[in-house]
Amino acid sequence: VDERDEAFIIASLEGEKPADISALLHEFETEDSKYVIDLLPSEVRADIINDLDEDIRSRFLRVFEPTEITEIVNHLDSDDAVDILNELPIKEREEVIACIDNQEKEANILDLLRYDEDVAGGLMAKELIKANLNWSVVRCIEEIRRQAENVQKLYSVYVVDDNDKLLGRVSLKKIILAEDNMHIADIYDPGVTSVETYMSEEEVAQVMRKYDLEAVPVVNMQGKLLGRITIDDVVDVITELADEERQMMSGISEDVEEADSIWMLTRARLPWLIVGVMGGFISARLIGVFEEELTRITAIAFFIPLIQATGGNVGIQSSSIVLQSLANPSAFNDSMQKRLFKVFVIAALNGAVLATLVYGGNLLTGGAVNLALVVSTALFCVVLIASLIGTITPLILHKFGFNPALASGPFITTTNDLMGLAIYFYTVHLLL
Amino acid sequence: VDERDEAFIIASLEGEKPADISALLHEFETEDSKYVIDLLPSEVRADIINDLDEDIRSRFLRVFEPTEITEIVNHLDSDDAVDILNELPIKEREEVIACIDNQEKEANILDLLRYDEDVAGGLMAKELIKANLNWSVVRCIEEIRRQAENVQKLYSVYVVDDNDKLLGRVSLKKIILAEDNMHIADIYDPGVTSVETYMSEEEVAQVMRKYDLEAVPVVNMQGKLLGRITIDDVVDVITELADEERQMMSGISEDVEEADSIWMLTRARLPWLIVGVMGGFISARLIGVFEEELTRITAIAFFIPLIQATGGNVGIQSSSIVLQSLANPSAFNDSMQKRLFKVFVIAALNGAVLATLVYGGNLLTGGAVNLALVVSTALFCVVLIASLIGTITPLILHKFGFNPALASGPFITTTNDLMGLAIYFYTVHLLL
Repeated sequence: VDERDEAFIIASLEGEKPADISALLHEFETEDSKYVIDLLPSEVRADIINDLDEDIRSRFLRVFEPTEITEIVNHLDSDDAVDILNELPIKEREEVIACIDNQEKEANILDLLRYDEDVAGGLMAKELIKANLNWSVVRCIEEIRRQAENVQKLYSVYVVDDNDKLLGRVSLKKIILAEDNMHIADIYDPGVTSVETYMSEEEVAQVMRKYDLEAVPVVNMQGKLLGRITIDDVVDVITELADEERQMMSGISEDVEEADSIWMLTRARLPWLIVGVMGGFISARLIGVFEEELTRITAIAFFIPLIQATGGNVGIQSSSIVLQSLANPSAFNDSMQKRLFKVFVIAALNGAVLATLVYGGNLLTGGAVNLALVVSTALFCVVLIASLIGTITPLILHKFGFNPALASGPFITTTNDLMGLAIYFYTVHLLL
Repeated sequence: VDERDEAFIIASLEGEKPADISALLHEFETEDSKYVIDLLPSEVRADIINDLDEDIRSRFLRVFEPTEITEIVNHLDSDDAVDILNELPIKEREEVIACIDNQEKEANILDLLRYDEDVAGGLMAKELIKANLNWSVVRCIEEIRRQAENVQKLYSVYVVDDNDKLLGRVSLKKIILAEDNMHIADIYDPGVTSVETYMSEEEVAQVMRKYDLEAVPVVNMQGKLLGRITIDDVVDVITELADEERQMMSGISEDVEEADSIWMLTRARLPWLIVGVMGGFISARLIGVFEEELTRITAIAFFIPLIQATGGNVGIQSSSIVLQSLANPSAFNDSMQKRLFKVFVIAALNGAVLATLVYGGNLLTGGAVNLALVVSTALFCVVLIASLIGTITPLILHKFGFNPALASGPFITTTNDLMGLAIYFYTVHLLL
């Protein structure tokens, strides 16, 4: 590539799939990539740009002329085109839209730009094949031939009435198997699952998973067919949500990868580390309050890690179980009261077992009886309270529209640490 | 249901989707569910059983006669049938297989039972439509009509040579759009992505995501077409992997849900809590070694939580970044040496910032200068070492075939805690 050996590059990329070429381009400098991409046919070029990671792509698009971007956008489905347009500065976006000469495409794109990226409306593509209820199968096949030019992946044909209201679907398989003299009304399946434009991407993913759908039609509140969402977009949503959850659980504040720059990685990690350090400071002050007790019985300090680690582990386990049920909701949930009671019983069981173990362990290793009793009592209380905090926090976060996975991250761990210490030292203060 | 009101149940379930009925049955007792299911047509019954959660289903199938299970199996695709058979005791499984009278189905099922559940061979279904390269389009459509009976979801037709070797695919769209006098050889697309039987489910998921596939053919090492994997199974794989990771990261040892029994939930949580408690005990002994220093300067105890929490947070962040890159591998990875160097630089940066903050904070709050220096020095070392442990552990786990998410769980946290304490007290011992 450095030598700009055009023929060699074209020859070696011939026959490679766009996704593989994108992966390759992630390793190049922007200028080299641009050079390589310009050598390729414009359809392949569009697929490659579409496959690039978002952050690389937006850096990449800066070296493109608006007319070049228009050409790319022309080759893509409306949903992918809109994703790219959303990454452009507003002025450039307008220029690109003005350059699109296909009226229908322009209207589709303008329509899709209205939706947030994380709702069904923002995931859907306008390209789909619809058939009127009253058409014959022959007419339908003709229409498919005509419409199929624009639709990259064809799963099924949606059936609508004269007002474009979604009535059902008919699979390609049924169309192929149908007799020529049949009508759509004879063979269509009225029980179609659809989603509405305002549904969140999580909900769309849940619906498609539950019913094993490869594509789902999107309707507005009046039931009018507006677009469709395909499973490949939902797979990306599911993967992104899992990545986001992992980040939150481990206290990383930005969407970073191992390959990102040292500066980005440091910036993503520092904020939560600083929160943790501040928590540590408050812990230090808290312990300082009980300096008198500590001076009297140094052994109190020995059990600080035990109390803290257990509180942290119990809290994270509890949040994680709530996260699990938020991610895979069942049709019927127990009432809040019942759930908390269950959490309480489980915590009491776990707490009792751990407290007994610690008590026994302390006596066996020749610890003082009264200190052993204090440690076990405090441990039991910490398990109870950490369970409740761990359960309630993700539910509250979820209710107010935050990602509940935050609750498994360092913020809650820090809170639990402080709470555990406070309980421990207060018990010491009371009983010793 | 309690009153066994047959007509009412049938009427109210009429028109409901199988997935919704399954969700409903999760709430019933096994006997009631069996009663409801027996009222439904056998095809719907098969879909419902297929949709049930694995643990509920295996409990449920115990009340079925082998002949009833055979009937269910007959209605399902071979991959789903095999999943159900795998849940049965071996004797019953043989009985069910013996009852299947469709020779082809029996052969398919016996073939699939050979594969592990977590490789491509275990995910694939035998039902697919294949066309010989030399067929005409008309012949192909006839064959589709004939074969389509068995295939629930039809995405594309796979093209093979006379020895069943996979050559390419042709989409239904192309078949519909083709002229009648064309041959498969004229319209098929030779660039088909396939997976081999022994590939892991993670790899299959990665391939399908990368190339946005809705179905992928499975071939053996000689390239012979054996089956296909559809995207809905892969969506389940991706979701399961995310659930498993969440469990490992939060130290839950079994696949549990909030709805499971108190006993199961306690059992899933206790093992790692006990590991944590044992770690806490070792910490206590470790601190005990430095009792003399502690008695001399009580303030040493104040910073135990700070050191531990930071070590834990840094370790989890580091493992999480490695997990991220293992889950979404890029085509080109840096060498191990380069990766570790980068981790080291980032850790040094983070460590320096945190150590400075803590030093400043300690002086501002009127702490002793030499203790502040010791705490900051120890903190810096802890950040460095926790980063390295957090980075290396998931890589080692991955290399030896364990789930790398284990590294973000309590086992590593406990190790990091101990390591942090040891560094802290050793620094105290050396410098104070």
